[in-house]
Amino acid sequence: VRISELSERSGVPVATIKYYLREQLLPPGRAVSATQAEYGQAHLRRLRLIRALIGVRGLTVNATRQVLAALSENEADVHQVLGLALGVRPVDGPEQPGPELGTPGTPDADALVARMGWRISPRSPARKVLTQTLQTMRSLGADYDWRSLIPYAELAQQTAVLDLDQLDDCNDPLEQAERAILLTILLEPALLALRRLAQEHESASRHGS
Amino acid sequence: VRISELSERSGVPVATIKYYLREQLLPPGRAVSATQAEYGQAHLRRLRLIRALIGVRGLTVNATRQVLAALSENEADVHQVLGLALGVRPVDGPEQPGPELGTPGTPDADALVARMGWRISPRSPARKVLTQTLQTMRSLGADYDWRSLIPYAELAQQTAVLDLDQLDDCNDPLEQAERAILLTILLEPALLALRRLAQEHESASRHGS
Repeated sequence: VRISELSERSGVPVATIKYYLREQLLPPGRAVSATQAEYGQAHLRRLRLIRALIGVRGLTVNATRQVLAALSENEADVHQVLGLALGVRPVDGPEQPGPELGTPGTPDADALVARMGWRISPRSPARKVLTQTLQTMRSLGADYDWRSLIPYAELAQQTAVLDLDQLDDCNDPLEQAERAILLTILLEPALLALRRLAQEHESASRHGS
Repeated sequence: VRISELSERSGVPVATIKYYLREQLLPPGRAVSATQAEYGQAHLRRLRLIRALIGVRGLTVNATRQVLAALSENEADVHQVLGLALGVRPVDGPEQPGPELGTPGTPDADALVARMGWRISPRSPARKVLTQTLQTMRSLGADYDWRSLIPYAELAQQTAVLDLDQLDDCNDPLEQAERAILLTILLEPALLALRRLAQEHESASRHGS
């Protein structure tokens, strides 16, 4: 399809699509004349992904370009692409530089990962987030160590099974990775909202009139 | 204790404590002379709470003052205080004004809450977050409605039971509310990190070598 129809189908203005093309977030279409190009289903999907990363979750253009580049380079290996998708954006938490490969520094998270029997990259930014959260809880006087998180980790495991089940009916690894990013990043606020709602209900059941 | 010891025990500099006193985040100590005041256990706990809200999760001084005022006014009713604690800060999500009481506008969330049998304030900001997430998923072409979230809601309910269990051994309602805020707000990044770790592990189990 032409750029105008791509705009219509995606809901993204033509000027914005041209900007994404210039910034190389979107690969060029197939040239059909000196001034026109044809775009396909892959462009539409890619546009949705860009909108989710930039528009909905506030990534910068540069960060988005890195994610997309990583996706293209690793098409062959589903797990590799999913890993990149999941590591895309450090979860919100205390400011912190990414941990270096091989440095210790996340003993709490390492202990929890080992206990759960999880196979996790040593470079996953999530390790640092866990360790820092526990440090913060302790600095605030709470009696908290990695064992306190085991029941939460077990529920997280069940959540991840739900997540991955939703990718199983999709065979194209690139599309699968794109879906994984959407699912991971877009659902996060909703999962926190569900926890708050459930807390309110649970509190009402225990203490309410 | 004197302000210097309060500073030592809390790790908050004296100048910062004085700032919190001026801003009425911290109630005044008991005056023992024209220039000195005594502070107690309640001040220490309150200081930790302020540090968590401002320092760790980035609330403004104004927002923090509102939370603390709401806590003090509702001491008598445990569930009321917990409700305030949980509603303190809208979860991260698309920008949105708080829903008006009685307006419709969150049909997705309302349907989910009804199906779960949850007792939830109609004004909970979490309703709006859920509805907007579902709208975003659909606008990106995902086949998603409130029923898709039922399994996630069931896991959220189990998470909330874990959360509330941790408040049960505490009888002072104000302290309970303070703990609820810490637990709700501080654990959020850790819970998202756990989900990412579990996703990586689940992906490795299904697709990895």
